[in-house]
Amino acid sequence: MGFLSEIPDVTFKKPLFCAILGNTLLSTVPGVSGAGSTPDNTLLTPILDAELIVQGAITSYPIKPNTPTGCPTPASITRSMMELCNLHPLFVNAGLRHSPTIPCFDVYGEIGEDPRFHNAVPRAQDLYDQGKLIGKALSDFSDLLVMGECVPGGTTTALCVLRTLGYEASVSSSFVDNPVTRKEEICRIALARVMADNITVPIDILKYTGDPMMPVATGIASTYTGHLLLAGGTQMLAVSAIIKGMELDLPSVVTTSYVRDDPSANVEQIARQIGVKMFYVDPGFGEIGHAGLARYCIGEVKEGMGAGGAMCLAHLLGYSPEEIRAKILQTVSAYS
Amino acid sequence: MGFLSEIPDVTFKKPLFCAILGNTLLSTVPGVSGAGSTPDNTLLTPILDAELIVQGAITSYPIKPNTPTGCPTPASITRSMMELCNLHPLFVNAGLRHSPTIPCFDVYGEIGEDPRFHNAVPRAQDLYDQGKLIGKALSDFSDLLVMGECVPGGTTTALCVLRTLGYEASVSSSFVDNPVTRKEEICRIALARVMADNITVPIDILKYTGDPMMPVATGIASTYTGHLLLAGGTQMLAVSAIIKGMELDLPSVVTTSYVRDDPSANVEQIARQIGVKMFYVDPGFGEIGHAGLARYCIGEVKEGMGAGGAMCLAHLLGYSPEEIRAKILQTVSAYS
Repeated sequence: MGFLSEIPDVTFKKPLFCAILGNTLLSTVPGVSGAGSTPDNTLLTPILDAELIVQGAITSYPIKPNTPTGCPTPASITRSMMELCNLHPLFVNAGLRHSPTIPCFDVYGEIGEDPRFHNAVPRAQDLYDQGKLIGKALSDFSDLLVMGECVPGGTTTALCVLRTLGYEASVSSSFVDNPVTRKEEICRIALARVMADNITVPIDILKYTGDPMMPVATGIASTYTGHLLLAGGTQMLAVSAIIKGMELDLPSVVTTSYVRDDPSANVEQIARQIGVKMFYVDPGFGEIGHAGLARYCIGEVKEGMGAGGAMCLAHLLGYSPEEIRAKILQTVSAYS
Repeated sequence: MGFLSEIPDVTFKKPLFCAILGNTLLSTVPGVSGAGSTPDNTLLTPILDAELIVQGAITSYPIKPNTPTGCPTPASITRSMMELCNLHPLFVNAGLRHSPTIPCFDVYGEIGEDPRFHNAVPRAQDLYDQGKLIGKALSDFSDLLVMGECVPGGTTTALCVLRTLGYEASVSSSFVDNPVTRKEEICRIALARVMADNITVPIDILKYTGDPMMPVATGIASTYTGHLLLAGGTQMLAVSAIIKGMELDLPSVVTTSYVRDDPSANVEQIARQIGVKMFYVDPGFGEIGHAGLARYCIGEVKEGMGAGGAMCLAHLLGYSPEEIRAKILQTVSAYS
């Protein structure tokens, strides 16, 4: 395939990139999330990523924008695309442990609880309603919305939500070695709670076992009047599955080819089951001349912070794959 | 004069109404602020006003959108103009005691301290920088920004800031009987702190004796690329004075004729000293046929939550004074 598996059939005048930030306590369970140098530091990742994208550098903490294994974070890819396209991204705070260091559209949610032991998002309905208000506001400001997310631990909540909805899902991971056993075990315990209470209404599934990003994203999708592209992998498929469950209009999903090609996940199969249109970006990180980026190709990181969607948007705005790759290389090299 | 003292010379395609919400502990000093049923309840007013404007009703607390003396709040006027013009207002949380019940653009500031005893806004520089980021974002979304505020107790911080900057200011009040003596006494003590430390840099003046709204508004004004109208009375004059002190481009200010005609304040004189262009809206509340609105004419409430700016914006969008008055009467009657 080329840079994009297929060119989305959208016409637009005013594109907007936004990303929803959230935490779930699941990311602090050792081994679940690779998005942070320690399990507790995963809770900081959304705000540091947002700071990097807006400011071009992380100054609030002495942390480099690389993963614990030295790969450039997806946020640095998103940053480079915002610079290339001269776009001002918008961040939505769906529920975080720590205060963001840059302005966010805030819905005043809480960090998601561990769905094994508690309802994960007690105020899911509220967050959905707040998302609806944000979707209306963003409709005033744009006619194409590329919406990513940053929720460390979020592939595990995605697994719980997709399974509860009856999809035969295996979800992706930022680790090369997807901690499948651990995720499956969490999912098994969380689903037992869901089944015991006979929960089938989509918003209640999010309440029991989702994360704060999901109801906010669903609310935005329900009222946004322009063209919506959900930017992410299995987490955005979980959002799509909820949107379908609520019988709302399905948006499309855009992610990287690295997520699609994750042998431990089954992204294409889940998308087919949901009936959601997928677009894949293959940025060719193997040939870019950067060891850290090349590791995306062997299954590390893969996606995050709407990086796939940001590259897709740059392409829709007329930038060639070569220009996009050159800008990414320039950006991540400056951070190394 | 007619409905507007003068028609602002602006051309625009995409107007945006926003309001900055903030608290200062000064509003809890008995007798300082009329914006709440008790001194402590003044801290709730910004979020209840924002809820009213967005939702059309206050449901989070058992409170009616009327002042303690039964006047319709300025927020209900702003609400009616948003409905009339089909505008989605945007709220900025500059620093509040309570979490808003509707989504806000949040800069993660704190409630302002009492400037008699502490620095009022220790992170003023930070809030200014965050405001700059918001100004850039809003420039993407609009080419005319009408920016109001809701800060109970804010006329007293405005007095402190204007006096520190050397203006011979007397400030307005939402009370019929402006508690001038109390404000003057607070101002005298706060200014003694400012003088003792020889504070003259504008952002430091806000740090010592402003409120969280002020640095955020100044930051937005410094980066907003469209046409900016500050919507408010003496509080927006304080912001203008800071903007002038920082040698930034001065926006215009729009407020109601009730603020201009407040005999305990000297709005026109302050504006002349600053060199800021003022526009006054005279909505003719005396002839509207509503006892509560008529009390605006005898000096109660007068302005707030950008109500003057909202009416001005409706007029710029082509609505006649009669249509504006009819809509306000319809809205406030539904709340009585």
